[in-house]
Amino acid sequence: MDDVLAGMDIKDLSRATIRQCVNTTRELERISGEKFVHLEFGVPGLKAPQIGIDMQKLALDAGIAAVYPPTGGIPEFKWNASAFINAFVGIGISPECVIPTVGSMQACFTLLMECSQLHEGRKAVIYISPGFPSHYLQSKVLGLEARILDIYHCRGKKLRPALEELMADGKACAIVYSNPNNPTWACLTEEELKIVGNLCTKYDIIALEDMAYMCMDFRRDRSVPFSPPYQPTVGRYTDNFALMVSASKIFSYAGERIGFAAISPKLYEREYPALKERYGISRFGDNFVLTFIYINSSGCSRSAQNAMSEMMEASVSGKYDFVDELREYARRAHRAKEIFYKHGFNLVYDKDLDQDVSDGFFFTIGYEGMPGSALLYDLMRCGICAITLTATRSDQQGIRVCVSMLNSDKDFEALDERLGLFVKLQSEVSE
Amino acid sequence: MDDVLAGMDIKDLSRATIRQCVNTTRELERISGEKFVHLEFGVPGLKAPQIGIDMQKLALDAGIAAVYPPTGGIPEFKWNASAFINAFVGIGISPECVIPTVGSMQACFTLLMECSQLHEGRKAVIYISPGFPSHYLQSKVLGLEARILDIYHCRGKKLRPALEELMADGKACAIVYSNPNNPTWACLTEEELKIVGNLCTKYDIIALEDMAYMCMDFRRDRSVPFSPPYQPTVGRYTDNFALMVSASKIFSYAGERIGFAAISPKLYEREYPALKERYGISRFGDNFVLTFIYINSSGCSRSAQNAMSEMMEASVSGKYDFVDELREYARRAHRAKEIFYKHGFNLVYDKDLDQDVSDGFFFTIGYEGMPGSALLYDLMRCGICAITLTATRSDQQGIRVCVSMLNSDKDFEALDERLGLFVKLQSEVSE
Repeated sequence: MDDVLAGMDIKDLSRATIRQCVNTTRELERISGEKFVHLEFGVPGLKAPQIGIDMQKLALDAGIAAVYPPTGGIPEFKWNASAFINAFVGIGISPECVIPTVGSMQACFTLLMECSQLHEGRKAVIYISPGFPSHYLQSKVLGLEARILDIYHCRGKKLRPALEELMADGKACAIVYSNPNNPTWACLTEEELKIVGNLCTKYDIIALEDMAYMCMDFRRDRSVPFSPPYQPTVGRYTDNFALMVSASKIFSYAGERIGFAAISPKLYEREYPALKERYGISRFGDNFVLTFIYINSSGCSRSAQNAMSEMMEASVSGKYDFVDELREYARRAHRAKEIFYKHGFNLVYDKDLDQDVSDGFFFTIGYEGMPGSALLYDLMRCGICAITLTATRSDQQGIRVCVSMLNSDKDFEALDERLGLFVKLQSEVSE
Repeated sequence: MDDVLAGMDIKDLSRATIRQCVNTTRELERISGEKFVHLEFGVPGLKAPQIGIDMQKLALDAGIAAVYPPTGGIPEFKWNASAFINAFVGIGISPECVIPTVGSMQACFTLLMECSQLHEGRKAVIYISPGFPSHYLQSKVLGLEARILDIYHCRGKKLRPALEELMADGKACAIVYSNPNNPTWACLTEEELKIVGNLCTKYDIIALEDMAYMCMDFRRDRSVPFSPPYQPTVGRYTDNFALMVSASKIFSYAGERIGFAAISPKLYEREYPALKERYGISRFGDNFVLTFIYINSSGCSRSAQNAMSEMMEASVSGKYDFVDELREYARRAHRAKEIFYKHGFNLVYDKDLDQDVSDGFFFTIGYEGMPGSALLYDLMRCGICAITLTATRSDQQGIRVCVSMLNSDKDFEALDERLGLFVKLQSEVSE
């Protein structure tokens, strides 16, 4: 294993990317001839809905492949996405302010670019961490300063002073976070989102709220359209926000790279002199479409827009219950956690204030205070792959577990057996 | 008309973007109840090939929508794109070095970003103009300096000193141009491409060669795979290059936003200390995939990759003659030019050295030395829409004509009739 790690140019396992971990595991699988238990991938583990596929094929048959999509999206997509947000998030964002993107990755990247050009000298981005490793990389590519706030230390009322410390110098232009959080599945409470929203207004900072896992806090039933409880959002507490929604997880439609940015109507209309001077266009929303999305990719796949539009329409009208489909992830998480607990592991990020975190797509696991890199190293020796919390910019010790690849009883049995091996290995080491 | 222009916030018609011209025309059509002759859109005017559509539907049926595409592209796409380049451009680029992108727009944007981060302090981009307006906007978004070289003044041997003047200070990192050129349909000759290539090597500048209109210089038959004459390319004269190919025009597949970057293998392998320091990855190609494409969109539509892959395979094996399909544009251009000539117009960019430019997707038209904005204004009064050469960063006077919307005899008759009105208007004015 040391040879393989050296061959992959990995000096510090705690900082290895998902891709590096995958490649290492693949090589070890090749050498040993045995399959690993894969807990590292954050890929959908469910099938794409047939209604989406059928609509995409219909659109192709109708000849849409030959025609450029409007950069701001096809009208039915914008309409249905607006209704979808209204039905499940419970806020009103008009169709004009909803723009389809090449996954929420493109939404976040282009929004970040625009946010960093609104005011001279404001080039810092605040990240509520731990988080999605690619989000930090976006800042690095754009030459922006990433300011990291580990949520572990500042839940509830502690959040306000911690955030203000990062905002007070007026250099921050945006704050990025996922809710539910990747990798901890911690969910910011309404109280916490209110703090974020108030501070965004106070310091004129834009909240970029990643809803990759929308409605996947399964502790309460969020499956009924136009009925509370809604997906929590900062959008109830400030006008300075944009939501980023992706079809990848909520509709298991990752292959077609489709999602959208839903921009607060007040922000969409807001005029910025710096944008006017640079691009001849004042409004935030017009620049997002005509400048940033346009020169980035000239919009996104037209047939995928039709597919996602149809899935949103079916969800809004109650024909398709996307939340119920996703409960499978919660069942897998529950079962996997039980196995980890049985072998003496513990949840690292375990609470939303006084409540246990939800079962969901990801959770975080530690073992008797072992450093993340040593823990991952020994787990890999026993045939289990994951990524460390360090790679997600957490200052806690442990690993991130994704349940999407745990597809069968056999996978859970393999996890149980290998964690047994791991525990045995630890007792041998300590002897 | 003046009211409509004022309402659209258009003060200088010569600088109006395509979108602004379209919106103005739409409003004028609404008011007058009469349809314009549309010469402004650069959209495909042909149907998407059935083989592409069929393969895309097959891929969707196979369940690919649920699975993230590999960031570097699916293997069959990479393989077929490599063969496609070999068959029609006549150079060898291995599949590893070919990466599908969300149209060539994304290819150019991400390549520009990477090129501007290779060396400290090299933030200028040279554009051979006139050109595609969005290309200049990409530089503006990235904060790069655009250096414009109007090809009108420096064809042939004059190209070398003109380019060296822009390169000599060592600040340029890339040169961007389309071949055939949008909007003039001028084609750089092998001699001129050799000059560009030699200078790219001498000054360590990367040529980003836009092949949106690949094989659409119809003066010679470029339709036979693996047979000369090939599409001319700078790739025969330097290792510092990347090709940008789009399915939008050559396969009339603009709706699905699919294309690719084909990076010179030597450039793909080249290690840059600045990249290593910033991203922990040295090689140009690895960074393009794992850093720039990844954080921009995590790859592109998987089903569209299958579609384009199939169309390229069919072209390479001779089952589908994409060049023959596109000859329709040349026929339309020939007929449209004859009508313009009949009414006293002239081609502005008329020659490739001693040869007439090819008939193709675009051409450039002037009238008795009239300034572009006055010409466009009077053409719009007569129900003809286009964009000025000024908007394409040309210093010549005239308009750009795109033939894609001239679909029927009726369209040509309308053009003829309205140019007649225009000539009458001019004689009235001069009386």
